[in-house]
Amino acid sequence: MEPRLLLGSGPSPVPERVLRALAQPTIGHLDPQFVAIMDEVAELLRATFRTDNRVAFPLSATGSGGMQAMVDTLVEPGDRVVCGVHGAFGARMADALGRAGADVVRVEAEWGRAIEPERLIEAWTGGRGRSRAMFVVHGETSTGVVADLTGLAEAVHADDGLLLIDCVTSLAGHPLDLVAAGVDAAFSGTQKCLNCPPGLAPFTVAERATDRLSRRSWYFDLDAILQYWLPGQDRADPGGTTPRAYHHTAPINMVYALREALAIVQEEGLEARWARHATAHEALRAALAELGFERYAPEGEQLHPLLCVRPPEDCEEASVRARLLGEHGIEVSGGLGPLAGRAWRIGVMGEGARPEPQRRLVEGVATLLGRDARDALDALDQGWA
Amino acid sequence: MEPRLLLGSGPSPVPERVLRALAQPTIGHLDPQFVAIMDEVAELLRATFRTDNRVAFPLSATGSGGMQAMVDTLVEPGDRVVCGVHGAFGARMADALGRAGADVVRVEAEWGRAIEPERLIEAWTGGRGRSRAMFVVHGETSTGVVADLTGLAEAVHADDGLLLIDCVTSLAGHPLDLVAAGVDAAFSGTQKCLNCPPGLAPFTVAERATDRLSRRSWYFDLDAILQYWLPGQDRADPGGTTPRAYHHTAPINMVYALREALAIVQEEGLEARWARHATAHEALRAALAELGFERYAPEGEQLHPLLCVRPPEDCEEASVRARLLGEHGIEVSGGLGPLAGRAWRIGVMGEGARPEPQRRLVEGVATLLGRDARDALDALDQGWA
Repeated sequence: MEPRLLLGSGPSPVPERVLRALAQPTIGHLDPQFVAIMDEVAELLRATFRTDNRVAFPLSATGSGGMQAMVDTLVEPGDRVVCGVHGAFGARMADALGRAGADVVRVEAEWGRAIEPERLIEAWTGGRGRSRAMFVVHGETSTGVVADLTGLAEAVHADDGLLLIDCVTSLAGHPLDLVAAGVDAAFSGTQKCLNCPPGLAPFTVAERATDRLSRRSWYFDLDAILQYWLPGQDRADPGGTTPRAYHHTAPINMVYALREALAIVQEEGLEARWARHATAHEALRAALAELGFERYAPEGEQLHPLLCVRPPEDCEEASVRARLLGEHGIEVSGGLGPLAGRAWRIGVMGEGARPEPQRRLVEGVATLLGRDARDALDALDQGWA
Repeated sequence: MEPRLLLGSGPSPVPERVLRALAQPTIGHLDPQFVAIMDEVAELLRATFRTDNRVAFPLSATGSGGMQAMVDTLVEPGDRVVCGVHGAFGARMADALGRAGADVVRVEAEWGRAIEPERLIEAWTGGRGRSRAMFVVHGETSTGVVADLTGLAEAVHADDGLLLIDCVTSLAGHPLDLVAAGVDAAFSGTQKCLNCPPGLAPFTVAERATDRLSRRSWYFDLDAILQYWLPGQDRADPGGTTPRAYHHTAPINMVYALREALAIVQEEGLEARWARHATAHEALRAALAELGFERYAPEGEQLHPLLCVRPPEDCEEASVRARLLGEHGIEVSGGLGPLAGRAWRIGVMGEGARPEPQRRLVEGVATLLGRDARDALDALDQGWA
C-alpha cells in the first residue's frame, strides 16, 4: 500500500509502537495474562477519562457502537431526551434515539457554531419532570466545534436526569473533566486523539447512573460486561467473590493496541497533551489562513483536535483533496451534510498534532494551489515557537 | 508474554501472516486503497459463506455482536420466534430475543445432543401463521454438537418465515451450505476456524430477507452499512450511481487481518479444509479416548471444530487445565452451564487442526495425568495417516 499521512477526521496516525502491540500473538480472553491487561486498560481509561467510575472499559465496537450502547443502556422507549444537534454527530444521535423510540427534543444550532447552554437548559426545563436525559456532542467532528457544558449537569441533575456526551474526538485532545462537568455517561473512539486503530469504544458511566442501566441489549449489557471486565465491582457482588464471568470474546489484539496507546497518553500527561493540541490547532489555523483557508468555528468555540475550514474560492476542494491524497499521500476529510463541498476537516490528533506532519500538509496544499508556502510556514513556526 | 498454543473454544491460533496483515499501517476508511480491500473482503466472505448474497460483510463487533445484529435487524418486538436451545449459545440467543421483546418458543435438548429437526418443525407448525423466524445454532460451541438443518427451511419458508443460524464455530471448519439449507441470515466470528483475532462478525442475509430488515438499531442498520460497504448494491440505488456513503469508521486493521485469513481459507479450498477438520477431529478424539476422555456428542452429531469431552474420573479437570496452561502453555476451555467442571472443550480450528499442535496437547495431557502417551500418539498418527 501507498503510505498515508492521516490528517483527516480520523483515523489518525498510528505510531509503530501501537502497531507492534496490535500484532502481539493472540491469547485467550480468560488467560491470566490477558486478564492483567484488561485491568491495566481499565485503570488507564479511568486516568484518561479522569474519573474513578467502575464502568470504564472499551466496548467491543467502534465509537458509533459506543453511541448505540448509550442509547440501548441509558434511554428507554418513550423517554424524553433533549438532544443538541449542530452537526452530523448530534443529528446521528437524534436519529438513533428516535429509532429506539425516545421522544427526542432537538436543540439546533448552525453547523459551525456551538449551542448556547441556556437553550439546552430551556428545552430541559420546558419538559421538567418528564425528561430522562440530555445528550450533547462534546467535540463535533463534522464542524470542529467544542460544546460548552456549563450549567447543564445542574439543570439535569436537579430533575434526576442524566447528562450524556459524545467525546469521540475530544478525549485526550481537548480539555474535558467529566467529574467537574457532572457527566453521567460518555463514549469515545480509539482512532482520534488516542492514535489507535478504530474498533473499540471507550465507555464510562458515573456511579449515580449505574442503577439506571437497561439490559434490553444482550451485547451492550454493561452489567454483564462489568462482570467480565471487573468482577467484584458489579452490583450483584460488591464484595468481589464472584469469579470473572465470560460474556463475549473480547477483541484481544485491539485491547493490546489500546493499552499501548493509553500508556503513551499517560507518558505525555493529559494536561501537556491538551496544551500541545491547543498549540497545534492554532499554529495550523494561522498557517492555513495564509493560504486562504478560514476556520468555521469562531474563536472560543474551536475544537482543538479538528480544524474545520472553508477552502479559498479558487480551490476546487474535492479535486485538490483527491490530489493531496494521490500525489502527496496526505489525507484530509471533506465536509458532511450542509458543509459537503464547502469544508475541509483537518485532524489535529495525537501524533498528527506535531510540527512535522503539519509542515508537510502546508507544503502540499501550497504546491497544489500554486502558492508560495513561505508565509504559511512562518506562521506555523511562530505558532509552535 | 508467555507463548500460548490456543486449543480452546477460541480464539484459535493466529498465523504470523495474519498478524503481519493486522499490523499494516492504518489508512482512512474512505481511502481508495481501503475501498479495494473492502470489495475483496466481501467477495472472499461470499466464497466462504458459499452464497452470492449482496449482504455479506463483517460487522464491526465480535461474533456476539453479530448475534445482537441478527436480533435487532430480523426480529421485531412481539414476533414469535422458535429458538433451539441445547447449549450456552442457543440459551444466549433465547435471552437476547426475549430482551428484544420477542415471543420466544424454546425447543430444548440435552446439552451434548442435537435437536431433532422434527421437534423444531413441530414447534413452528404449532404457531402456523404466527411465527416470524426460527433460530438454530449450527455449531454449538458449548457442547461440540452440529445442528441438522434438514427440512427446517421448507417448513419455515412455507409460512413466509426466516431461518436464522449462528455459524460462529462452524464457518470454514464444518460442512455448511447456506443456499442448500435455505438459510436466510447467518452470523459468524473471526476467531474460530478463520484463525483471525476476535473483533469482527461476518454476516450475511439472503435476498429474500433483505426487505424484512428492521432499522431500529442505528449501528446495526444493514441498509446503511451496505451503502458504505457495497454502494450500488443497496435497494435505494440498484443501478449503482450513489457514491459510497460513510456510515461508521470501519475497524481498518481488523479488516486487513480478515482479508488475509479469508485468503488462506481460499488457498486451501473450503472442501479440503472441511475434510481436514473432520480428520483432525477424529484423530484427536481417538487419541484422547486412549487417555480416558470421552466425547459428549454421539457419532454423527459431532461438530468437527470443537471436541467436547468428559475428562476421566481421576482428572481434576480445573487444576489439570490450569497446569496445562501454566506449565505447557496450552489452552483448552472448561465446560459452561451444566457442563461446568465436567467437560473440556478443545478447539480443532484452522491451524489448530494439524498433527503437530494435537501431538503437543496429547503429550502434555499424558504427562500431567502420569500416563504413557504412546497409545494415544499412535491413535493420533493413525487418524492422520
